[in-house]
Amino acid sequence: MKKIRGGVTAPRGFSAGGVFCGIKASRKKDLMLVVSDGPCAAGGVFTTNRVRAHCVERNLRLLRNRPAARAVIANSGNANCLTGPSGRRHTEMMAKAAADALGIGEDEVLVASTGVIGKRLPIERLMRSVPDLVSGLRPNPAGNQAAAQAILTTDTVIKEMAVKLGISGRTVRIGAIAKGSGMIHPEMTPDGLRHATMLCFITTDAVISPDVLQRSLEKAIRRSFNMISVDGDMSTNDMVLLLANAKAKNRPIREKSAEEAAFTRALGAICLHLAKAMVRDGEGATKFVEIQIKGARSEADAREAGLTVASSSLVKTALFGCDPNWGRLAASVGTADVEMNPAKLQVKLGRHWVLSGNRVVKQKKAELARLFRRKNIKITLDLGAGRCGATVWTSDLSTQYVRINSAYRT
Amino acid sequence: MKKIRGGVTAPRGFSAGGVFCGIKASRKKDLMLVVSDGPCAAGGVFTTNRVRAHCVERNLRLLRNRPAARAVIANSGNANCLTGPSGRRHTEMMAKAAADALGIGEDEVLVASTGVIGKRLPIERLMRSVPDLVSGLRPNPAGNQAAAQAILTTDTVIKEMAVKLGISGRTVRIGAIAKGSGMIHPEMTPDGLRHATMLCFITTDAVISPDVLQRSLEKAIRRSFNMISVDGDMSTNDMVLLLANAKAKNRPIREKSAEEAAFTRALGAICLHLAKAMVRDGEGATKFVEIQIKGARSEADAREAGLTVASSSLVKTALFGCDPNWGRLAASVGTADVEMNPAKLQVKLGRHWVLSGNRVVKQKKAELARLFRRKNIKITLDLGAGRCGATVWTSDLSTQYVRINSAYRT
Repeated sequence: MKKIRGGVTAPRGFSAGGVFCGIKASRKKDLMLVVSDGPCAAGGVFTTNRVRAHCVERNLRLLRNRPAARAVIANSGNANCLTGPSGRRHTEMMAKAAADALGIGEDEVLVASTGVIGKRLPIERLMRSVPDLVSGLRPNPAGNQAAAQAILTTDTVIKEMAVKLGISGRTVRIGAIAKGSGMIHPEMTPDGLRHATMLCFITTDAVISPDVLQRSLEKAIRRSFNMISVDGDMSTNDMVLLLANAKAKNRPIREKSAEEAAFTRALGAICLHLAKAMVRDGEGATKFVEIQIKGARSEADAREAGLTVASSSLVKTALFGCDPNWGRLAASVGTADVEMNPAKLQVKLGRHWVLSGNRVVKQKKAELARLFRRKNIKITLDLGAGRCGATVWTSDLSTQYVRINSAYRT
Repeated sequence: MKKIRGGVTAPRGFSAGGVFCGIKASRKKDLMLVVSDGPCAAGGVFTTNRVRAHCVERNLRLLRNRPAARAVIANSGNANCLTGPSGRRHTEMMAKAAADALGIGEDEVLVASTGVIGKRLPIERLMRSVPDLVSGLRPNPAGNQAAAQAILTTDTVIKEMAVKLGISGRTVRIGAIAKGSGMIHPEMTPDGLRHATMLCFITTDAVISPDVLQRSLEKAIRRSFNMISVDGDMSTNDMVLLLANAKAKNRPIREKSAEEAAFTRALGAICLHLAKAMVRDGEGATKFVEIQIKGARSEADAREAGLTVASSSLVKTALFGCDPNWGRLAASVGTADVEMNPAKLQVKLGRHWVLSGNRVVKQKKAELARLFRRKNIKITLDLGAGRCGATVWTSDLSTQYVRINSAYRT
């Protein structure tokens, strides 16, 4: 596996573009399109929020039958969620406008939206911009850059990655773009049953069946997007979409094969890179924190414990204050609804155990203080209840986070 | 029921006091004692955090057998939690010091602590202050004031209330003091099985058996302390203790009697007043928000939905920004693990429905903006899934909250 340039346009046969269609007051790009030259196997995972945007409902319905897909159209600045029957119609109109301009079927177009909830999408302006969007499609890094910009909301940087790997003697490429900075606490499943707005669109030229593709995606997001939290708030619009157009002409990647493992590993590396990029670009974030949970009964328990700590306002404000306040870590993990042995609880800050065997381990205060002044902090918590673990990533809660989100007007 | 002066010293036969014993750097009062002239029936509810302070463990053990109790000793500034076997010994020493100075049994003294976790209690200084504490006990409002001050941490005001009511021809008094400003998201049960540091000590001169007293307390906290959240973080030390010394000489309050109902109503009113006082004094709070959940399958579902919304950083920062961003309310309630019908979700801000029948109800922007500039805000969410409801209370998430909690050094 080797990192390459190009994001979603790195794999053969994909082009992308982005324009300003009239949603964002800043007049920045707010509408993007990713298109494959030929039909693709498609996979997706979606928010598990019970309140879901129309685009999530539509993609879920389309992908249920593992159809061929060709394109993804997405807007930013408006989530088109809780906008009633007209909002549902607008999602359909976005798909149809892209399909018509590209000369493909409506059902071959997947739709995504991100932004304010409960506000009518300016669909007329959006539709009028689709011809420009299509004529601006580019197969090179320029197309990818424009698309990556057009999905941003409060993000301060674009998020992209692409890799190539060898599969059955052929070079397979995987590329992706993503957005996400606030309302980040994803828990996505293939049926969107239960958690951020984060969007990630992944393309690959691999030959792979829709079923194998979907399972590979589910594995890839498990230890990446589903292991991060910026602010503990899950969005109504989260989704990861994956299109595979088979242009690499490798032998089809079969289930449980070495090729599938290699492909999933590469996909997982892309997802983890982008998930971490979201946390680094988290709204108001001044810290990048890795929380490792050990001694859990199950990986699910470890994830729950990690995300509970990552969601604690008291833990996050202590991190912002560079305060090695491990008591808050212990108090917070104690509220997680998982098996634990409080008498065996252990807490490690960086390489220093501060609580071990229910006893406070004396530390040089200056050393811990220095550790917590760094941007990157690693915390380990051992629940003393089993042999499973998980790693989650989070940012701190800063005065800037509050400013961003109290000024973000509807 | 009539409000009276005096807090915990309002009921006959109770005295209280508070001194500075050497824990707080500010040199403010940090050790308090509430004592009854005679033996009391005692009840209590405790944090459900799996990580619990030694004082919680000790009170749980003592109260299991419904013993007679006489006194409560409590310190602030140090939670004496995760302090190992020496910490456990220090809790016992606090009880013994009070018992010796008062000439009562060790097991008649209940202990509470609040403050920093994982730090050794300066037990020598604390013990040396107990004689002064005992000699300063007063039965009048002065004793109550000193005790109420000595349990405060980040609180800006003392919290107290007392009432009197007629029971079987006699006047029964109930009085209480409480503290709580941050780490407030209580879920207390009689066995401390599962959620803030909040402390509340209640006294009464009613004649009531320990069992009836305990059940009455459990009912009283259900729709008060267990329905508030300041920052979503549950403490390791939360507790409510209730002592009844029978000095009112009423006929014993029997289970399921009209007297029990009246007593529980009065107790509930005190708990609700103090719970709301904690939210109003929430760390950095600029808003007092009532969230009413309707249309839930059960009251437990309604509580869970309400506390989920009350714990959302995006909802709380919008409130701080005076932003009627109801989309965040809907997105947040959608993540609650309860039955709901998203298509029937309804949202009301003050008296204005903004989402009804999954359609946005047009509003005058200026009116909603005016509504959200007020200090007191009422929000109603109808889940469309049943006929049950609950009301929770919360504060906003301000830049000041972040400052307080990033500067609060271990």
